[in-house]
Parts: sequence; structure tokens; C-alpha cells
Amino acid sequence: MTVFSSFSRAFHAHSSSKLLVLFSVSSGGLVALSESQAESDRPNAELCQTESKKRVVVLGTGWAGISFLKGLNSSMYDVQVVSPRNYFAFTPLLPSVTCGTVEARSIVEPIRNMIKKRSVDINFWEAECLQIDAENKRIFCRSNLDENLVGNNEFYLEYDYLIIAVGAQVNTFNTPGVSEYCYFLKEVEDAQRIRRSVIDCFEKAVLPGLSEEERRTNVHFVIVGGGPTGVEFAAELHDFVQEDLIKLYPSVKDLVKITVIQSGDHILNTFDERISSFAEQKFGRDGIEVLTGSRVISVSDKLINMKMKGEVLSMPHGMVVWSTGVGARPVVKDFMEQIGQGNRRVLATDEWLRVKGCRDVYALGDCATVDQRKIMEDILTIFKAADTDNSGTLSMEEFQAVVEDILERYPQVELFLKSKHLPHVTDLLKDAEGNERPEVDYEEFKSALSLVDLQTKCLPATAQVAAQQGAYLSRCFNHRKQCETNPEGPRRFRLSGRHQFHPFQYKHLGQFATLGGEQAGAELPGDWVSVGHSTQWLWYSVYASKQVSWRTRFLVVSDWTRKFIFGRDSSRI
Amino acid sequence: MTVFSSFSRAFHAHSSSKLLVLFSVSSGGLVALSESQAESDRPNAELCQTESKKRVVVLGTGWAGISFLKGLNSSMYDVQVVSPRNYFAFTPLLPSVTCGTVEARSIVEPIRNMIKKRSVDINFWEAECLQIDAENKRIFCRSNLDENLVGNNEFYLEYDYLIIAVGAQVNTFNTPGVSEYCYFLKEVEDAQRIRRSVIDCFEKAVLPGLSEEERRTNVHFVIVGGGPTGVEFAAELHDFVQEDLIKLYPSVKDLVKITVIQSGDHILNTFDERISSFAEQKFGRDGIEVLTGSRVISVSDKLINMKMKGEVLSMPHGMVVWSTGVGARPVVKDFMEQIGQGNRRVLATDEWLRVKGCRDVYALGDCATVDQRKIMEDILTIFKAADTDNSGTLSMEEFQAVVEDILERYPQVELFLKSKHLPHVTDLLKDAEGNERPEVDYEEFKSALSLVDLQTKCLPATAQVAAQQGAYLSRCFNHRKQCETNPEGPRRFRLSGRHQFHPFQYKHLGQFATLGGEQAGAELPGDWVSVGHSTQWLWYSVYASKQVSWRTRFLVVSDWTRKFIFGRDSSRI
Repeated sequence: MTVFSSFSRAFHAHSSSKLLVLFSVSSGGLVALSESQAESDRPNAELCQTESKKRVVVLGTGWAGISFLKGLNSSMYDVQVVSPRNYFAFTPLLPSVTCGTVEARSIVEPIRNMIKKRSVDINFWEAECLQIDAENKRIFCRSNLDENLVGNNEFYLEYDYLIIAVGAQVNTFNTPGVSEYCYFLKEVEDAQRIRRSVIDCFEKAVLPGLSEEERRTNVHFVIVGGGPTGVEFAAELHDFVQEDLIKLYPSVKDLVKITVIQSGDHILNTFDERISSFAEQKFGRDGIEVLTGSRVISVSDKLINMKMKGEVLSMPHGMVVWSTGVGARPVVKDFMEQIGQGNRRVLATDEWLRVKGCRDVYALGDCATVDQRKIMEDILTIFKAADTDNSGTLSMEEFQAVVEDILERYPQVELFLKSKHLPHVTDLLKDAEGNERPEVDYEEFKSALSLVDLQTKCLPATAQVAAQQGAYLSRCFNHRKQCETNPEGPRRFRLSGRHQFHPFQYKHLGQFATLGGEQAGAELPGDWVSVGHSTQWLWYSVYASKQVSWRTRFLVVSDWTRKFIFGRDSSRI
Repeated sequence: MTVFSSFSRAFHAHSSSKLLVLFSVSSGGLVALSESQAESDRPNAELCQTESKKRVVVLGTGWAGISFLKGLNSSMYDVQVVSPRNYFAFTPLLPSVTCGTVEARSIVEPIRNMIKKRSVDINFWEAECLQIDAENKRIFCRSNLDENLVGNNEFYLEYDYLIIAVGAQVNTFNTPGVSEYCYFLKEVEDAQRIRRSVIDCFEKAVLPGLSEEERRTNVHFVIVGGGPTGVEFAAELHDFVQEDLIKLYPSVKDLVKITVIQSGDHILNTFDERISSFAEQKFGRDGIEVLTGSRVISVSDKLINMKMKGEVLSMPHGMVVWSTGVGARPVVKDFMEQIGQGNRRVLATDEWLRVKGCRDVYALGDCATVDQRKIMEDILTIFKAADTDNSGTLSMEEFQAVVEDILERYPQVELFLKSKHLPHVTDLLKDAEGNERPEVDYEEFKSALSLVDLQTKCLPATAQVAAQQGAYLSRCFNHRKQCETNPEGPRRFRLSGRHQFHPFQYKHLGQFATLGGEQAGAELPGDWVSVGHSTQWLWYSVYASKQVSWRTRFLVVSDWTRKFIFGRDSSRI
């Protein structure tokens, strides 16, 4: 026992200082979301000890919240975290949890474990924020542990800065029957529920006294939504059925059917076309039916009704998983009403992740979108500011003096250049024939940039965006003091001086989709696309290395090993 | 992928043929419940193929049911298994599941996995038996998967032999508030619920705005019942709190309290006194309060009321785990009414595990007790049968001719000899001064055996008894044909001939109780008692070797390893 406990202690010490790397990644560049970057960016803590600490309240412990907390120099602030989940979940592995390829517990890490490793105090309250009072800078919370709680379970917290990172909830688009009869795949509990239900469907299908039609219906699995989550679930389910369940339920092995319903023309339509069509071909070979161009009208306990190419269809089903679209949570909806954003889908922030319409409130992750300022709104101010000699025309030198600031403040300019295959930003000012102009006047300048704003892109609601936003914001908080005196951001065209911080800039590091049968598709930086078995191994490496702790890394890898050796478990627990 | 899948296939093949042993046990004799024995006992299957197969219906997939199925030569019968749980759970590790030392999924094995390994068909239905109709030899079942089931979920099964092995349920002794406010520890789901609740209690206790008294109450854990389950849970909880939780919830570390309420004078009172007092001393050192001689009167959401040495006490609590006593399940209660056993606690069977009062129904495990026939009921018949020369007296030779049969038919005789420290059974017939008598008459014979029946013992409701009963019964079923012509049992004193089978005889292989801090107590065969750290290692070995499959063995051992390295998880899932 003593040997073991000292070993254990030794390991604990090592694990927190991150000594070794279990998996190295061949492709380079893709991995390691924000971890390393944020750490090195922290300024000296003692700088800020002179005045009383500002109170930072963080709502949510998902990708955005955790990434913020990991990066934040918490000795500079009085940090309080409120979330109904006392753990962080590695959501990209949720589809694997639905079929027991990975255990639920292997993809979660308790917040308090993560906090414990920091030398300073961060308070965590397992509670739900019910209301945000931005006027009085406080929030109202209630513990969701009503049952048997001794004492009052409601409390207020006051803040100087509020970080809203509560994520989103499933969007049923008010389709009748969805909330009653469909399974979702957003939380860890959802994945566990799906797992039990899949087993149940098989147990139902083999009961004595059922007709073949009834058996067939019980093992008909319908997935609504052909995005990465839906596709990965379909693939996992197919593997689970083929590799494990048909051996245990041989009497229904020819009756199982998996159907994916997608409103667009292709599944995985946020991915490169090559991946999307590879997935469709693979699904075709596997016998997974993909119904594109179909929209679900309603769901009942026995039937799913949909419109497919103008025709109304009904399909009997054993189980429906709804995995399409996200919407704002009630507390966010309520807050949006308060600050005049009531008609929006999610919170709008500026490029510094500050919620528009109130002070000292930040929002990141799935509950918010960055509302990129259009260059055409500022076009006159930019022109005037750039025209330093007040000549009414912009010389190439004058333009080049502001071009850096323009590119940083309005990233759509760069996207526009890319889409037009223009190598240099000065190419913008060329005339219709492509000849350089020594000078442009206001109208010419305006018309040269007039189409730029069309390239403004909404960031996708992914873990990667959320994690980068969290890391970005923590860096801003860590550098608040320095940047007050030495602003680092781009020039303010409408006002004088510079912005305090660089605006948030998303760097797309690529994306993965597992397609079953040990195959995956990957989109990597530099338009590099990879599909097949080797990509699945890349996926294993990347997902193992991305785990937030050595504990979960160990657990996930041993779950994969266990699956290879023993298959997946089919117990109904 | 191909490498892995062929490896996986190879391993599957090996695992079913049981090639290697992971843990060897130093003490010998204790391990391997029934596994090896039953296998070698199977007669040649082809013997019985001549007539149509008899239908055997097994209710339940606990220790008794699984042990029966494992031993049964299922090619001789048409076997159907009905249980609401599609898995077998290794219940002795349930207390470890409550605190995450072992994961729930590591101690369960799907029934269909176990069936798949047998070459012949066994049908399993995930359903609950609601009624037994012994008159018409059929049972009425309903799938507990009401939700969304397509088709009829009710069905009848007809049987030639029925094996009732449904186990027992928690007995609240009608104490008010117990079923509403207490946690139980009988099923895997119960253990998972307790785990979540323990974390909840800590999350509640650290919420802002609570008084110290309220915090203290939230982390006051009360365990009712000082049997092995209750004691092991208390020990696990203490370890969980001390080794993991107080690091994560430092603000309440001095407020946590664990109380064990026991109605008897000592905890672990079915164990040897040395183990029981070792446990009490260890709990004393650990600060676990043991309230002996206390009876719970009622439980409310906030208070537990009890009577302690005549005095009525109330204690505020954060959580109560009720772990005392078992009672019959509704279907068994109903069946008992039917066959005139309505006033009993559990089903009564004879020594061959046949339910008294009906034909071809067997009951084993926690839902039944063996009702040992009293020797005094048969004393005259025995005397007459033994008195072969009809002399009215029994000579020593005459007595010795029947003594083997008596010892087998009435095992209480052996217990009586042991309790009186009599080395030979013939010592029974000595006179009051201890002198041997050449002959005894009926009255002397009767008086010599008059106190024997007081030694009749009820078998405890343990996994060990259930497993041995299952193995015993499967052997009887496998030898039914042979034993019809060559009965193997003891002489029938009331009728002629011999009993078809040996009666069931329980062989106590010892018992364990883990006491926390890597210490355990063990009672081993031959009155050998062992306590302390080495016993805990013995416990690890035995429990690893007793696992029903290589999969669960691998999982349990890796869970233990994980606990040593990373501690237990405190996520609320």
C-alpha cells in the first residue's frame, strides 16, 4: 500500500507539470488548441496586486469557459465560476459515448480537479445562473440540487466582469413531437441515454410474439441532421451493430436499418466536398440510408413524418436522434430581451467579444457570435483618416500606411482578396483593366471595397472556436493593465488612438469526422484533405493529445484498447 | 486496422476457452465458486436426445440464475431465461461502485455475451415475470421497455421446470419515510445513484450563503445497517472523502461526518468476533461513528429519528443509505400466497431446492430458504428402518449401517456433534456417564437425538450460497436421466429406496469485509481469521479471480490501477 501511495503521489506531481507527451502528431500544426499558448502569455502577477482585485464571474464550464480559466492569470482577479455541471466534457467524443466505444466518465474532468492544480483560489459553485442583471452588475443563481438540500439554494453574485460561456441548447425549430419523442446529443447524459435506448431497441425487437414488421421497426434508427455529430453517431451505431450487436441478437441481424435525414443536398456540408462525397459513398456501401433534401415535419412515438422533394412521407421508427441546429438557452434569451437583442438567435458581440449594448459583459462559445463591423459603415472615416495631406485623394503611400490596421480591423478584406485570388492588398486599388493607379479618390476607394463585406463570415458553433475565444479573452484579461497604457490593437478610425487589444481572430486548424469501420475524413490547414484508415489513426492521435488531463487521456486510450480487445458492452446500465 | 481486428478475434477465441489465470491465490481453497466444478460434471449430451427436450424457464440473472445456467448442459433442455436486467452484476463490488473505486460497467457482464459462448441456443427475454401459474405450468411476463415499444410487450411462457432465482428486494420494515428519503444498495443503479448523491452533498455544502450548521448537515452521511454492505460502504465513503474529496472541497473538510446505525451490539455480527472488533476499532480511529443498539423509527428529508437504548433521538442528515434486511419481491409474494406460504418471509424449499407445495418448481438464492427437515419428525421411521432384526433395540452395527444416510439427510446432526465436541457420531448413543451402550431402545435413541434439531441453521442470503445452489441444481438437471435409474441420494426412511439426488449441502468458503485504508478482514475455512493490509491484497486477488469474464476482470483490475494513480472521479454524472 505504501509503495502504491507514494507512486501515486509521485505521479500526481508529474501529471500537473506536464512532462511527457503520449502521442505525437505527424501532421503538425493541427493540435494543442490553446493550452501552451495561453500559459506563456501571462504577465507577472505581482504587477497587479496594488489595487483590490476585480471580480470576474464565469458562467459555464464548456470549451469556452474552461479555455478562459486555463489561460487566465487568476491571481490578478477574484474568479468565481457558476455552472450546473461540475465537470468539463470533451464533447467531440460524445458520439463515441453513445455506443460505448468510450465511457462517459473517460471524457469528463471535474472542474475542481482543474482548479486544484492552479496555485490560487477560484471559487466554483454548482448552480444555474437564472438571471443576469447587467444594470446592477450581478447575477442570480440557484443550485439545481433541490432534492434534500439543507439551507437556501439561491444566491446573488456581484461582478466587475461577466463572462457568458453557457453554450447553446438543442433547437427543435418548434417541430411537433421532437422534444417528447426524440433523443438529443448535446450533453453527456444525452449520450448515456442514447446508449441505453439502443440496447433497449434490440431487446424489444427480439421479444416473443412480435411480427417481423414490428421487429424491423424496433431496430430502425433515424438520425435527423447530417452534420458531423449526426454522421459520427450514425457511423458509431453502424459499427456497434455490425461488430457487436448482431452477434448477440442474431435473430434480428438482417432487420436493422439506419437512416440519416438531411435537409441539405449533402451530408457533412461544412466539410470539403471530397470528404462529404467519401462519407456518402461509405454510407452507401454500409447500407446506411441517406435522405437528402428532406425536412422533418413532425415526430410521434411510432412515426416520423417528413417532406422529401415536395412529397410527404411517413416512416415507422424505433428511435430518433435529433442532431440539428442549436438555439439560445433561456437565461441568454432573457438577457437578449433585456439588452435589445431579442430578435436574434444568439448573443451578438463585437470583435473583442464584448456583448453589444452593455458594459463589462463578454460572451463566447456557442451562446454568441461575433458581429463583424462592415467596412462600408466606416468607409468615409477610413478615407479621411488615411488622407493625411487632406488632398481628397489617397496616394499609394497613404493607403499603405493604414492597410495593416484595415486588415486587422476588417478581416473580411483578407478573405475577399483570397476569394479573388489577389496576391497583394494594393491590387484592390487597381482600375478595371488591372492597371495600378497612383491615386484614388473617395468614390473610387469606396467602389474598390464595396464588395468586401460580402465575405464576412459567421464563425461556426464548434469547440475549436470556443476554445480559441476563451484563450484569446484570457490573454486580454491578463494584459489589461499593460494594454491600458500601451494599446496593442489596430488604429481607431472613428476616434483617435488605437484599440486596447487586438480583435479576436479565428484560426481554423482543420476538422475531423469519423465515418466508422476505422475510417475518418480530415480537413487540415492548407487545404489538405485526407480520408481513410490512416486518417482514423491521425484522429486517434489528435484526440488523445487534445485531452484536458492525463487522467482522461489514459482513460480514453484504455477505452479504445478495451474496445479492440473485448468489443463494446451491451449491458443496459 | 486489420492487425487489430485479427488480434481482437484471436483474443476473443482465447478468452472463451480460459487459457490463463491473471491472479493466483495464496490461501487456496477459497476461490472459484462453482465455475470449474460444474463444467466437468456434464454427462454426454447425446444421451438425452432421444425424447423431445423439456422446457426449463429460469427467472433471474443474479448469482443463482447465472451459476445454474453456467453449469447446465443446455443441449439437454430447451432453456429460456427471463430477467428485467440483461446483465449479471458482480454484487460484492457494489460498495466500491458507490464511490467510483470501480466503475459500474466493470462489474457487469451482458447475459447474451455469456450465452453466446455456449454452443447451443438459450433464449433470453429482457422482461419481468409478473405472475407464476404453477397449476398450468406457465408464467406471465411483461417487457419493462414500455416506452416506444412497437408491438405487444406481454407474453406467456410455458415450462416443464421453473427455476425461480429472482433475488430479493430491500426491506424497509415499513419504517416511515425510508422508501421516500433513503438510498439503497441492492442494484447497480442504486450504487450509481449513491455516487451522484455523495458528490451532490459536497456541492451543496460549499454553496455560498449557508451557515456552518447547514454545511455540516449536508455532509453528514448516515448508514443504517452494520452488515457487510453497510460497513463496506462506510469504509469506501471514508476513503473517498479523505483521499479525494477533501482536496477538492477544502472548506468543508472538517465538517464531514459518517455515522453507522446498527440495531445489534456489534457491526459485522455475522463475522468472527475478532473481525468485528477490529472493524469497530478501525472505524473508531477513522472517526466513523458507530451507534450500536439503535433502531430507526422514521426518516424525513432532513432528520433521521431513532431509538437508542430506550431514548428517542433525532439527527439531521445530508444523505441516508438503508442497507438492512431483504424481503420477497412482489411476484414471489404473490406466488407464496398461491401455494399456501403466504405467512413466510421468503419461499420455502426442501433440501433439493424444490419449492414446497408445488411440482417442478425450484427456488434458489435470496428469494428462498431451504427448510431443513427435523430429524424428530422422522425419528420413529428411522428407528424402525434401522432396526433390521425388529428386536425393538438398535445395536451399534445396525446404527452404523444407517449413520451415513442420517448424516446426509439431516446435516444438523453433524453441526450438533461439532457443537458438543463429539469426535464420532457413535458418541451420540453413549449414556449419561459417557459409557458406550451395546444397544439402545427407541426412547433412548429419541432422547439421544432430541436436541439435534436445535442446530438447524438457516443459510445466509449471500452470493456464495446462491452460486453454490445454482451449481448444485444444474448438476441435478444434468444427471436427471442417470439418477432416475441409479439414485445417488440418501436412503428414504419413510418410503423405500433412495432419494434421486444428494440434498444440497452448503460449503462455507469464508467471507471478506473491506474496511477502508487498504485494510480488510477475512474469515477463511478452518477458523482462520486474517485482518489488515495483507488481507486487502488477498481480497484483491480473490475478487479479481472470481470475476465472471476476462473482460470484467481486465476492467476491474484497471479500475483499481486507475484509482491508485489518479484517484477517484468526482464528476456528477
